[in-house]
Amino acid sequence: MIIVMKQGAKKENIEAVIDLVAKNNLKPVPLYGTERTVIAVIGDERVLNKDTVEAMDDVEKVMEVLKPYKLAAREYHPENTIIKVGEGANCVNIGGKEIVVMAGPCAVENKEQIISIAKEVKKAGAKILRGGAFKPRTAPYDFQGLGEQGLKYLAAAREETGLKIVTEVVDPRDVALVEKYADILQVGTRNMQNYTLLKELGKAKKPVLLKRGMWATYKEWLLAAEYIISSGNPNVILCERGIRTFETHTRNTLDLAAVPALKELTHLPIVVDPSHGTGRRSLVSAMCKAAIATGCDGLIIESHTHPEKSVSDAEQTISTEVLKQLMKDFKKVAEAVGRKI
Amino acid sequence: MIIVMKQGAKKENIEAVIDLVAKNNLKPVPLYGTERTVIAVIGDERVLNKDTVEAMDDVEKVMEVLKPYKLAAREYHPENTIIKVGEGANCVNIGGKEIVVMAGPCAVENKEQIISIAKEVKKAGAKILRGGAFKPRTAPYDFQGLGEQGLKYLAAAREETGLKIVTEVVDPRDVALVEKYADILQVGTRNMQNYTLLKELGKAKKPVLLKRGMWATYKEWLLAAEYIISSGNPNVILCERGIRTFETHTRNTLDLAAVPALKELTHLPIVVDPSHGTGRRSLVSAMCKAAIATGCDGLIIESHTHPEKSVSDAEQTISTEVLKQLMKDFKKVAEAVGRKI
Amino acid sequence: MIIVMKQGAKKENIEAVIDLVAKNNLKPVPLYGTERTVIAVIGDERVLNKDTVEAMDDVEKVMEVLKPYKLAAREYHPENTIIKVGEGANCVNIGGKEIVVMAGPCAVENKEQIISIAKEVKKAGAKILRGGAFKPRTAPYDFQGLGEQGLKYLAAAREETGLKIVTEVVDPRDVALVEKYADILQVGTRNMQNYTLLKELGKAKKPVLLKRGMWATYKEWLLAAEYIISSGNPNVILCERGIRTFETHTRNTLDLAAVPALKELTHLPIVVDPSHGTGRRSLVSAMCKAAIATGCDGLIIESHTHPEKSVSDAEQTISTEVLKQLMKDFKKVAEAVGRKI
Amino acid sequence: MIIVMKQGAKKENIEAVIDLVAKNNLKPVPLYGTERTVIAVIGDERVLNKDTVEAMDDVEKVMEVLKPYKLAAREYHPENTIIKVGEGANCVNIGGKEIVVMAGPCAVENKEQIISIAKEVKKAGAKILRGGAFKPRTAPYDFQGLGEQGLKYLAAAREETGLKIVTEVVDPRDVALVEKYADILQVGTRNMQNYTLLKELGKAKKPVLLKRGMWATYKEWLLAAEYIISSGNPNVILCERGIRTFETHTRNTLDLAAVPALKELTHLPIVVDPSHGTGRRSLVSAMCKAAIATGCDGLIIESHTHPEKSVSDAEQTISTEVLKQLMKDFKKVAEAVGRKI
Repeated sequence: MIIVMKQGAKKENIEAVIDLVAKNNLKPVPLYGTERTVIAVIGDERVLNKDTVEAMDDVEKVMEVLKPYKLAAREYHPENTIIKVGEGANCVNIGGKEIVVMAGPCAVENKEQIISIAKEVKKAGAKILRGGAFKPRTAPYDFQGLGEQGLKYLAAAREETGLKIVTEVVDPRDVALVEKYADILQVGTRNMQNYTLLKELGKAKKPVLLKRGMWATYKEWLLAAEYIISSGNPNVILCERGIRTFETHTRNTLDLAAVPALKELTHLPIVVDPSHGTGRRSLVSAMCKAAIATGCDGLIIESHTHPEKSVSDAEQTISTEVLKQLMKDFKKVAEAVGRKI
Repeated sequence: MIIVMKQGAKKENIEAVIDLVAKNNLKPVPLYGTERTVIAVIGDERVLNKDTVEAMDDVEKVMEVLKPYKLAAREYHPENTIIKVGEGANCVNIGGKEIVVMAGPCAVENKEQIISIAKEVKKAGAKILRGGAFKPRTAPYDFQGLGEQGLKYLAAAREETGLKIVTEVVDPRDVALVEKYADILQVGTRNMQNYTLLKELGKAKKPVLLKRGMWATYKEWLLAAEYIISSGNPNVILCERGIRTFETHTRNTLDLAAVPALKELTHLPIVVDPSHGTGRRSLVSAMCKAAIATGCDGLIIESHTHPEKSVSDAEQTISTEVLKQLMKDFKKVAEAVGRKI
Repeated sequence: MIIVMKQGAKKENIEAVIDLVAKNNLKPVPLYGTERTVIAVIGDERVLNKDTVEAMDDVEKVMEVLKPYKLAAREYHPENTIIKVGEGANCVNIGGKEIVVMAGPCAVENKEQIISIAKEVKKAGAKILRGGAFKPRTAPYDFQGLGEQGLKYLAAAREETGLKIVTEVVDPRDVALVEKYADILQVGTRNMQNYTLLKELGKAKKPVLLKRGMWATYKEWLLAAEYIISSGNPNVILCERGIRTFETHTRNTLDLAAVPALKELTHLPIVVDPSHGTGRRSLVSAMCKAAIATGCDGLIIESHTHPEKSVSDAEQTISTEVLKQLMKDFKKVAEAVGRKI
Repeated sequence: MIIVMKQGAKKENIEAVIDLVAKNNLKPVPLYGTERTVIAVIGDERVLNKDTVEAMDDVEKVMEVLKPYKLAAREYHPENTIIKVGEGANCVNIGGKEIVVMAGPCAVENKEQIISIAKEVKKAGAKILRGGAFKPRTAPYDFQGLGEQGLKYLAAAREETGLKIVTEVVDPRDVALVEKYADILQVGTRNMQNYTLLKELGKAKKPVLLKRGMWATYKEWLLAAEYIISSGNPNVILCERGIRTFETHTRNTLDLAAVPALKELTHLPIVVDPSHGTGRRSLVSAMCKAAIATGCDGLIIESHTHPEKSVSDAEQTISTEVLKQLMKDFKKVAEAVGRKI
């Protein structure tokens, strides 16, 4: 931690800062510059509260040297984490050489729908079926999902196809229920800093797919992952799904630089959601290919046998027929960057 | 709803849209323009799913004419809503002529702290005591609040001073517990679209202070209020607390235009939080005065007898001594705009 | 400057940084921490290129301690700058106790229009007439202004009313021409980093009103002012006019915290433009009052005798009749904060 | 154009709008809905000023149906534009099957530097040499470029290597000068809405590379292109270089969805600048590959024989040695998406 004092800071205020640092068993190194005094802190600065120091008299700003997260940081865990989805020979690895495709409808609508879509996305080459049973919707009057019935239909689709299941959990009280049916528990963008939910997911045994908050910096996102890991569940998959910016042509701005940037900062696998990231069906293909080219570990794509009949997110959902075509292109790009699908 | 077809849209696709509109018992009015066909929809367009229409072939875009929220809209409820906090002669009204000041520490730290602060903010003229017992913190290693013990200390401070209590609830399972102690239940910025929590709060009998999500548009914020109201609780107080922008000098960008803009869009009262809105103690005074000048119904200010000892948000917390001084200035500005404090 | 090395940085790379610092006649102070080595730089770090240091091997990040601007900084110029507009007894001071109101149409349309508006805004109490002769318009097909003819009409309005004139210059080749007619030269938001124009304005003798770029941080804005001052013209008035955010209900998000924040960072006067800041006529009044309450030195308000006939920005222009009413309210708020209008 | 009247709009105000539409030789179609009256406008709405209509009494909002740009729109020019850089057999085509790589230093520093870099980037496979002679720098104290001398060195490098030259012009007075030496005239991000400069470039005979303003929507960007085209120069190359968002880990947020989105909206070629788009050397490779995968027509990459000695943008500049390695990977990705480098 580097503590910058204001120009003309009083001697007693400088000393108060030095004292505080020392009291926390850290070593203060005051540097008397031409214009300002700076106090460098040697030791694990995380024991010192940045806010508290910034609130002291004559302190201009406090700059952190160390990262506030540890368990999620590559520095403390240099090897890539590979997450096993499902068990035994049949399990799917996320974070290895293979780029895993997750596809399916926005919401589970009924048993026939989800099973027929599951069959088609399996034919296309997807390994994991996505589909919402609990839907967080912006308006209270929109379809909120089928709840546990939807989970049962997802399980039936797994039974039928062998696909693994990823589905969202929105309520901490439902974690055990969703875990009973799903293979991966998804945290939606709006819940990225729902700490109650994150801590509950820390107790789950299944992997968690943590979508980036549409307002969240990389640091905040990794701190959200840190919540889950420090609560006991190390199996966190990050999912870039676009951030909110001033551009309104696309639903969100898909921040693909997040992939290589997070590969440096963390050992956790990263998947990309170009459906929410663009909100436009016609842009999904190009952004899937781009995501693969950046080095992501998976894709999550809204796909439906009849997109125009989808009860939600229809405008960003591609047809399963189109998905089959696109998968050929995805394979080519994956090979070009030394990966496979 | 206005449905704009693509240039050169096929006749059958135009007809499909017209059919869909008619099937929903709405009246389609096709307008054949020089470059594009536009289909206007007469009737309550909210029965028609925008996504579904946008997903249809040859549809370029869909523009909404009606607002997606009703219960929160001033159109359907022209009178200001005045919310009673507490009961009987002693109750505090929010949304009337008086601007209500809520003040107190970021977090409840111990009984002595909260009671001594409560006494000081009461002397300053505040009517409501703020203080967190359940704290949503960005990092899992930061102080997370005292939980129910903190609620008890808040209740003790109310007992001692007669101030009402506003405190945050972060877990849907805690709504009943927090309601037992608090006079107003606060939803923090990160939980603005935690629909599980919102619906639970719709069953509460106490008013809800709904902070704006740092990423949320006015429309999304009012839809979050709509969740609470449509679940049974009409007593929602909106709280502008800054949005996330590219400017990093301040912690957030306090969007004061939200006050007059929302006064047009909704009948609900609006308070402003300049502490989180700026993240800098030295800016709080100016932004409180500005908030009053815009026509807000209340202020929520982080205030502590010893800000530098605050366990969280210290850098944006003003001392209770300063608060007393500022209240005199606040009164003058309130009078200048025909209000009182 | 504080140079943070990567974890496990090689000894030779640490030494290379130390050497570079020393070669620039600055004193390097290496601090060997538990996880990282940090090199503090003592001396005027501005001689050292941040980019160059960040590009060196094993450097993780470089944090600046000193501000990159000097002439605009309050640290080096603690007194408020008061800018004289016009000469002799008749001059208008910006930055003193009085809050100066500038009002007038978006664009000069013809001689009668500008003179009749000038008379009305003068009656309302404005001291400075605004109006564009050179208009930067988003679309090439929109009205681009009357050019020099417009400047002549503005001068005629000044002749008639005694009001000072503020008008925009968009082309470095026009600075001398605009200076011939105007009392204040305005730089529009889109040109805040048009350095060619800024340097040319540095040679002008008249004050410059520098609007904030809608994408610009406070630091970048002050560096733009630094361009003008360091080129020879110390008379820079800053103008907050809203920044671009995700909120689309308002044209921009008016960042009023900029006023008290910049009062700390700089000695230059600051005015506020609530017309562009909101883009909505019905919000102008509240935001003018709020701006006054924050401590701004002036307001610039789009005002027209017949707003609905305005050739541009009509939706954010208030009528001169309304302006007269509002000025009474503005005076009250100004008095409440110890200022006058 | 669709004009939405307020709920309960007065009859005379509705009629005033209808009259205005009719007076502009457009056909008004009033639609009397259950809650609101909407007036659809048939004809080329671009003759009607949106602002003016929005300023009328009882008008709630005005929604545009047609795009405000024409010359840049794919609707009016369905074929891709292929831009010839240079003349004769030796010319380079931008917008065809080949993805054109432009590489070179941020700034021209001296003759030896630019020639040695040119030779290396040519070996790597670049077709165009980039390098700034006129540099727009955020701080007035930073290196501002060599001016005409820099242009002469660029020309010498072309002579030596046969590479084409792209370089920035920042002053409308310098357009003829820069055109004398350069093959492509670059408009930097800060000047995207410097209309004076754009109009001057409309008179040039050489192609223009128009970088996206870091605050600009696609619509504003295409309107900037429209300025150049409507002033006489149809040879505009768009360049995505990142937008400003809340994320600070990267210098900008590279919006790669701009590539497929603009391919739909416009016929102009699009290149991507991952150096400025990320501001971090270690992310350049992944984002180049991603850009290729989206379907871009070119890349512009900051590259230097000794990045750490670069006078500007050093932290985002890759070495020419690294560029040579990367080009092999770029070729593979290009082939995977049916293009070549």
